[in-house]
Amino acid sequence: MSSRYTLGLDYGTNSVRALLVNVANGREVATSVWGYEQGESGVLLSRDPNLARQHPMEYVRGAEAVVRSVLTAARKSVRGFSADQVVGIGVDTTGSTPLPVDAQGKPLAFQKRFAKNPAAMAWLWKDHTSVDEAGEITRLAAAIRPQYLAKCGGTYSSEWFFSKILHCCRTAPEVFKAAHLWVECADWIPAMLTGTEAPERLTIGICAAGHKGLYHESWGGYPDAEFLGQLDPGMASLRARLRGGARSIDQAVGGLSAEWAKKTGLREGTPVAVGAFDAHLGAVGSGVAAGRLVKIIGTSTCDITVSSMAEPLADVPGVCGIVPGSVLPGFHGLEAGQSAVGDIFNWFVNYLQPGGAKAGSHEALTKAAARLAPGESGLLALDWNNGNRTVLVDQRLTGLLVGQTLYTTPAEIYRALIEATAFGALTIIRRFEEYGVKVDEVVNCGGIAEKNPLVMQIYADVTGRPMKVSRSGQTCALGAAIAGSVVAGVHRDYATAQKVMTGLKSKVYVPRPAAQAVYAELYALYRELHDAFGTQAWRGGLHGVMKRLLEIRTGARG
Amino acid sequence: MSSRYTLGLDYGTNSVRALLVNVANGREVATSVWGYEQGESGVLLSRDPNLARQHPMEYVRGAEAVVRSVLTAARKSVRGFSADQVVGIGVDTTGSTPLPVDAQGKPLAFQKRFAKNPAAMAWLWKDHTSVDEAGEITRLAAAIRPQYLAKCGGTYSSEWFFSKILHCCRTAPEVFKAAHLWVECADWIPAMLTGTEAPERLTIGICAAGHKGLYHESWGGYPDAEFLGQLDPGMASLRARLRGGARSIDQAVGGLSAEWAKKTGLREGTPVAVGAFDAHLGAVGSGVAAGRLVKIIGTSTCDITVSSMAEPLADVPGVCGIVPGSVLPGFHGLEAGQSAVGDIFNWFVNYLQPGGAKAGSHEALTKAAARLAPGESGLLALDWNNGNRTVLVDQRLTGLLVGQTLYTTPAEIYRALIEATAFGALTIIRRFEEYGVKVDEVVNCGGIAEKNPLVMQIYADVTGRPMKVSRSGQTCALGAAIAGSVVAGVHRDYATAQKVMTGLKSKVYVPRPAAQAVYAELYALYRELHDAFGTQAWRGGLHGVMKRLLEIRTGARG
Repeated sequence: MSSRYTLGLDYGTNSVRALLVNVANGREVATSVWGYEQGESGVLLSRDPNLARQHPMEYVRGAEAVVRSVLTAARKSVRGFSADQVVGIGVDTTGSTPLPVDAQGKPLAFQKRFAKNPAAMAWLWKDHTSVDEAGEITRLAAAIRPQYLAKCGGTYSSEWFFSKILHCCRTAPEVFKAAHLWVECADWIPAMLTGTEAPERLTIGICAAGHKGLYHESWGGYPDAEFLGQLDPGMASLRARLRGGARSIDQAVGGLSAEWAKKTGLREGTPVAVGAFDAHLGAVGSGVAAGRLVKIIGTSTCDITVSSMAEPLADVPGVCGIVPGSVLPGFHGLEAGQSAVGDIFNWFVNYLQPGGAKAGSHEALTKAAARLAPGESGLLALDWNNGNRTVLVDQRLTGLLVGQTLYTTPAEIYRALIEATAFGALTIIRRFEEYGVKVDEVVNCGGIAEKNPLVMQIYADVTGRPMKVSRSGQTCALGAAIAGSVVAGVHRDYATAQKVMTGLKSKVYVPRPAAQAVYAELYALYRELHDAFGTQAWRGGLHGVMKRLLEIRTGARG
Repeated sequence: MSSRYTLGLDYGTNSVRALLVNVANGREVATSVWGYEQGESGVLLSRDPNLARQHPMEYVRGAEAVVRSVLTAARKSVRGFSADQVVGIGVDTTGSTPLPVDAQGKPLAFQKRFAKNPAAMAWLWKDHTSVDEAGEITRLAAAIRPQYLAKCGGTYSSEWFFSKILHCCRTAPEVFKAAHLWVECADWIPAMLTGTEAPERLTIGICAAGHKGLYHESWGGYPDAEFLGQLDPGMASLRARLRGGARSIDQAVGGLSAEWAKKTGLREGTPVAVGAFDAHLGAVGSGVAAGRLVKIIGTSTCDITVSSMAEPLADVPGVCGIVPGSVLPGFHGLEAGQSAVGDIFNWFVNYLQPGGAKAGSHEALTKAAARLAPGESGLLALDWNNGNRTVLVDQRLTGLLVGQTLYTTPAEIYRALIEATAFGALTIIRRFEEYGVKVDEVVNCGGIAEKNPLVMQIYADVTGRPMKVSRSGQTCALGAAIAGSVVAGVHRDYATAQKVMTGLKSKVYVPRPAAQAVYAELYALYRELHDAFGTQAWRGGLHGVMKRLLEIRTGARG
């Protein structure tokens, strides 16, 4: 029998990737990447630094381009390869990245009158225009639907589904009125591939709905119309059009449509799995299981683990979501994260450009930072340049650096920034454990985990745990391919598929006791700053400082 | 009658300058600079980042070099000039910069056995090795001599005379035992020029002794032997050898010695004024008077004003010194200051080197920062990279920057650092006024005041006061030359001499109301951070954060 393959389609912030995987052993036989063409690397920006949108046409063009080219690549690298050997497709995307669609399920952005309207685009996960609306939703839920907040860490985020829709309702009513429905990118791509975009045929995934859309079966799916109606009457009528019956990734949304079979060369009817967020399928591709935390480290991080639905699970304050079946069927999916990790290092290198072009590269700074001992710089940073997702769930926080002298060097600051993200990582692990979620093992994936041993060693030293690294360099796409293998019926369940198709690298970063001791002291100071600037409960009054600076900035920018 | 000139000798951190001034109008007819040759631009460093010393041979070589060359320059620029037209000499130096000398008043560093011993050098003002001893002196004074602290702002600094001597006593006993006396650089140079170094002939100036040596006539000069003896028995015996009779700068220490007349070409017997600190004579050269605050802005700042001794004056907590006659005869001299201003900007440009060589120069950053509106960056900094001299009097504080996003630019940080120093400047003005010291007028001098209109405009906007700039570009040396004119009897008093020899530039920086309003808000936040991190009295606990980081750093550096 000839080998069988599944295809993982991984929609990132700047590009889409296709990965073709051998279902018998997880071998990644071909990959292809297509960079988005509009805006700044696919991100549509504006004068408002909080705005980040994407044109949905990128998704259509991208799918066609990468699938065709990954098949071409496979034909070259695999003797006798045929597209008919591709038996299943999985999809992961960024999120929450909702887009408004019309009554046929087509993006409003495809209509001429909305083609350049930012509100008609996909609202990227990192769009932070909806801070006010997030606050409004949080306050309303605290008052009349506290159960909603309990499942999403206590605060509804400006990055999420309803904050963005409400902001559109308030600021771009022409788009809001024209929108029949808002669909998460993770749901829209599989619908596009299978021709099921029409609202009455649309399948929604529990991953996006549960983690970002306040969707929970115990209260009948999405928030009720009364709740949404108190935000705005338009939101109540939207509620009537929102779908129920959210599915896990062990379900297929349908088979590849004739149109897309023709476009790509894949077989019509190839099953396409329910879509999920990149980090969630990245966790699947890293072998996520009960007791195993997967850290997907990129520009930001997602920290994903699962907990058996057979066992009781407390709500965990500050953890973005606890959703039955959102990562793996039969398990509560738990998602935490840091709003910026690689992005902070990138900011330092690209915006500050310290030490000139040569001394200021990631490589040079990492090398110099590696020569420093823990604590030697006297510096301490907060990893909040893009806000704090877990445990504070507050976008209106900013970075902080303390300890500068007249001799502080770029390498010292670079190391302090790495350490800050490690302290943020430890804060997440501790929060999980405080609420009874076991973290027996930490598996990292993403470019930084693979390429930067210094970061991994600091994470081991700060958290006091061995840092393992996922074998695949494309765990999100691999996870999507695994989903393809399950909906194709190749593997009977995810545990089997993960056992066959995932693995770890042999290198494990082990905590060094002397470094651990210093970092324990530094972490205590980090927590002092974290609580002082990040929590209202803190005995002092610094909670207002970062927020006032942002208000003054807004005023100054007019 | 041919013109008369006086010579100002200005001993800085990295070089010595000679300035020849026409006593009739303050015209600066010739100047010359000699850079120190040892260490890093004259500063002897070590692995300990707190150590900063200077070899006293620099003072000898420097005097000869600059005086000879300024006379040569004057012969070229002034028709018919003769060295005999130089009728008086004044000297200013850094301080507190004490050096140990033998029983003949010669620096120990001139002895072969001590020639390379850092403890036998001059201990530069910015040497911070004596933090523990400063704490010890402060605690002992608080317990048994509270009057000592009341005159020096409530805290004895690690930068000052007795902290350094006690640190030498503790850590370099061989030097301490060999030292007959410790002499401030400001006293030693005039003694050298007049051949009065021998301890029994030595004249000490009230400026150094009063501001840094706890010298006050009301308790009989320097601290008593019982007090010093409780620090260390060796300190009590040193006390017996310390001189009394501290003089103001209207007195001459003597006439130029035959040896120095020969070395320099000046007339033997030319009167040499009592020496004073650079900032104090800089204030004189900027026309300091009651109600006029002079800010000498360089790597650090000194903020100097005077208050008539005919009027009562409260002790001002956090102000480094209040000393009768220390700046002008008949006035209390008040000295405050910021431990780093230009040094912070230099750190950012030279150590971080942001934006590459071109975009990262002071000029380029200033230009880009000038395009920003107040508050637009969302950043706020504390100006403590080198500790805080006034009003916290605490070297064990460090820099802080808050408000960074993923888009923060070098120019934004540069502006935030300028603003931080402006907030520090305002804190000093407010402290003066709270205690009844009038600040009707602010006159700035030093390179930054002359060359950076953005800094001056921000200072005007932040303080809400017009910023004036001294006419002379060399106010310290000019002040020294003015002292030379008074001891030469050319002018009968300082008021007369200042009126004739000093002036202001025509450009005045006027506060802009809109900017003032934003800065008032930012200053309130600055004070929150200032008090949280800088004062124990603050309701929170962040006072320990910077100190613990410094302790951890010390541990990490072994």
